[in-house]
Formats: sequence, C-alpha cells, structure tokens
Amino acid sequence: MDYLELCESITEEIEDEINDLIGKKEASRQIRIGADDKPTRLIDNRAEKAAMNLLKSEDVLLITEESGKVDFGEPECAVILDPVDGTFNATKDIPFYSVSVAVADLDLSKIKFGYIKDIPRDNIYYANRDKSYLNGNEISVSQESELAKSSVSYYSYGVDKYKKSRLDQFVDRVRTLGCISLEMCYVASGKLEGFVDVRGAGVMDIAAASLIVRSAGGSFEVFSSNFPSKKVKKSTKSVASNGLVHEDIKGVL
Amino acid sequence: MDYLELCESITEEIEDEINDLIGKKEASRQIRIGADDKPTRLIDNRAEKAAMNLLKSEDVLLITEESGKVDFGEPECAVILDPVDGTFNATKDIPFYSVSVAVADLDLSKIKFGYIKDIPRDNIYYANRDKSYLNGNEISVSQESELAKSSVSYYSYGVDKYKKSRLDQFVDRVRTLGCISLEMCYVASGKLEGFVDVRGAGVMDIAAASLIVRSAGGSFEVFSSNFPSKKVKKSTKSVASNGLVHEDIKGVL
Repeated sequence: MDYLELCESITEEIEDEINDLIGKKEASRQIRIGADDKPTRLIDNRAEKAAMNLLKSEDVLLITEESGKVDFGEPECAVILDPVDGTFNATKDIPFYSVSVAVADLDLSKIKFGYIKDIPRDNIYYANRDKSYLNGNEISVSQESELAKSSVSYYSYGVDKYKKSRLDQFVDRVRTLGCISLEMCYVASGKLEGFVDVRGAGVMDIAAASLIVRSAGGSFEVFSSNFPSKKVKKSTKSVASNGLVHEDIKGVL
Repeated sequence: MDYLELCESITEEIEDEINDLIGKKEASRQIRIGADDKPTRLIDNRAEKAAMNLLKSEDVLLITEESGKVDFGEPECAVILDPVDGTFNATKDIPFYSVSVAVADLDLSKIKFGYIKDIPRDNIYYANRDKSYLNGNEISVSQESELAKSSVSYYSYGVDKYKKSRLDQFVDRVRTLGCISLEMCYVASGKLEGFVDVRGAGVMDIAAASLIVRSAGGSFEVFSSNFPSKKVKKSTKSVASNGLVHEDIKGVL
C-alpha cells in the first residue's frame, strides 16, 4: 500500500465534497453528536462520508472523530482521520483548515506515515519515520533555543486558567490559529517554536502531526494518557516543539 | 483626491517592494527603533520607503509607525499608514498580514476612509463613513447576540494577566491570529463577533479598521486615551465588536 497515494486520494475526495460549503453558515449546522462526544457539523459529516466511501475498497481500520472505529476489508493498517481540522475556520472562510491522515500499525503501537493538507494554500505536509516534507521538500524545525525569542501556539478554552498568562510573559508571542494539525506543521517547518494544548486534543487531531514534528527533528510529548490510542473519546494534553525549547515551555506552563 | 485610488496605489507599491521578502529570515532583521519606539524590521522599512516615495507627489500629512509624521506638499488630509501589519506572519509566510491605510482630516478629528488589503488572499476591505465593502461587495457584522456563541480575537502579551482566562470561559472560542487590522475586518465581515486588545495598539494598527467595523454596523471603542491621535507612541486599549455582544465582552474582561 502506497501511503502517500492513499492519503492523497482520501484528501481529494474530501476536498471535492466540501468545496461548496467553505464560508457557508449551512456548513456549521449540527447533524448529531460524534463518536468523540463532540457535535458533528454538516461539513464534517459530508467530509467523513466521502472518505469512507473511498476507503470501502481498501483493507484498513478507520478511526475518526465522527464514526469512531470502522473495519474495511481485512485491515492491514489503521487510518486515523480528521476529515476537517479547523471546522470553525472552514465554515467562516478563515484560511486555516486541513485534512489530517495518519497511517498506523493495527494495534496503534506505531505511527508509520503522517499527511496533512493545508487546503486553502494547497500545501502538503507529510512524513515517514525518518523525514518530513512540505510539497516534497524536506523540512526541519527552527533552531531557536531561547524561549524569550520563541513563538508558541496555545489552546486553553477556559481550563488551566493562568497557564496562558504565564506563557505570555516568557515567550515572544502566542498564537491561537484554530487548526491544531496545521499549527503543528508550522512547528515542524520552523514557523513556530512550539505548540501547547492544555485542553486535550483527540488522537485524530494530533496523530499525523506528531510524526511530522518528530521526523522534522522536533519533540512531541503527551502530558497524560497513552498515545496513540484507539479511544476516540480520549483527549490528550500535549506539547510539540523544536526540541530546543521543549523543557523551557513545560517549565512555564 | 480619490481615496480608494490613493490607497490602492500605496498598496501596490508596498506589495511590489516586499514580495521577495515574504517567508525570509532576512525580512525580520532589525534596522532601527521606529517612531513608535518599537523595532523597525527590514520588511517594514522597505515597505514604508516605497509608500513614501509614492506619496512625495501627493499633498498629504503621513503618519506611520516607523517615521512618525511627515508632510508632503501642502497637506489636504492625513494618511495613517501601517505598511505591514502582521510583520511576524509575513516574515514566516503565515498567511495573515496586510497593508492598512486610513485617510483622516488634517486634525485627525474624523477618519474619512479606511482601506485594508489582505495580501496573501488578495482581498480588499474598505469603508467610507456610511458603508463597508469587501472586494466591492457590502459587508456587515454578525447578528450573533449571545456571548457564549461568539468568537473573539484577543491580544494580551503578558499584561492584564487573567483577562484572557476569564474571556475564555464566557465565549465559544478565542483566537490570536497575529494581524490586528485583518482581525478587525473579520469582525466587520461577520467571521468573528469581537476583537479585544488589552496591550494597547498604535493608531496606525486600528485607524482604518475602526471605520471599517463601524461602517459595517459594529462598535469600536477605546478604553483609554483619545483616538485617533497624532501621537504615534500612544497605544490604545480597544474593543471592536458586532455591537450586539459589545457590553457583554467588556463585562467579562
């Protein structure tokens, strides 16, 4: 199985399906509650259906936010899919949203391939266990080793009240762009020094990105729980970084 | 004087000048300290020079971050310019940065025209005293009146420690995208319900955007100091919103 080809096929199906929903109010209509206990919106629902339709003819175990775990054929590997990461941005036509696909061993002991498409910019990030690429060119993390000169993407949503405030005082700038997988690709490609999620993200949000960060020379670490996990309801607090400022970021959280 | 034409000419000059610096480390090299007491980077410096070169043949008072106030000819009006808003994003090729131009009375008692170009997406926002437009089509703020369903862009940079944490608990989502003028255009066009800067932005950052928000039916308010002001060192804490959630946002800051 050619993983890059598989990921590209899935993404093409999804893009074709959601193209007319970008920036539309209708796209954010809540359809139901997904397997991850979060609302499934029309755009997520249509994107996932498109991917599932394609995967029918593949031998994979699919793990997604909306449907949970689904077996196709005689599974050889697991596909961990976030059909639209950054749903809010997509429904508002804010240009930060992606398709995120990770390929893992069936027991999820190892992520073998990670693929993230920055849809608005038509950029493709991917990684095997050795190297990470942007549009076919190798990428690597930033070489900044001073926290005070670092830029970090950060998520809280009202939890861990004072952490962001503390971080703000020690790093040059904090961002919250609204698409976790893409923000981790920004760490992998040196645009940001770090990414912190203290709310906890689902495995679908971070599986592909974790490999892309690591294979680009960076560090990825979960605070709690095992990762990756087949438990789609499980959320994982995490830090990704260029490695050089990793401990310093954790120190001020 | 056709203000839209003037703003477009300034922006074209700037775009031509900075095009080769986008995503380049060199672009962020610090040249000197600007009139606003903040570092002037190579990209800001080149952008401003390009604008000044064009404005030599116009009768305007120019107000900018880097050079302060400069008279050209026999000034008929003031041009308040941020040649690159979102400098960090531009130097990292993160697709959120803009040129912001406001035209005001000479005594800055009234902003008459506001123009902001979203450079990566080639989108033009502008406003007169009555209406706001995106690429020539009228825009208006969102009709969301519940704070709990609102999305708000927020800046703190280590000041007012707990405010973001409080906001986070009352609104649906908080963003920090790194380009104030464009985030205010997102409020004007209904993509976000609000924008808060508790650090204080300079007059150059918010002059054009304040008119675009107001003429799109929203509210813009400064917490302290007079606005607009010719004092380029003066920073202004501010809230922009769709109007409907304005008091509620202020209530949880």
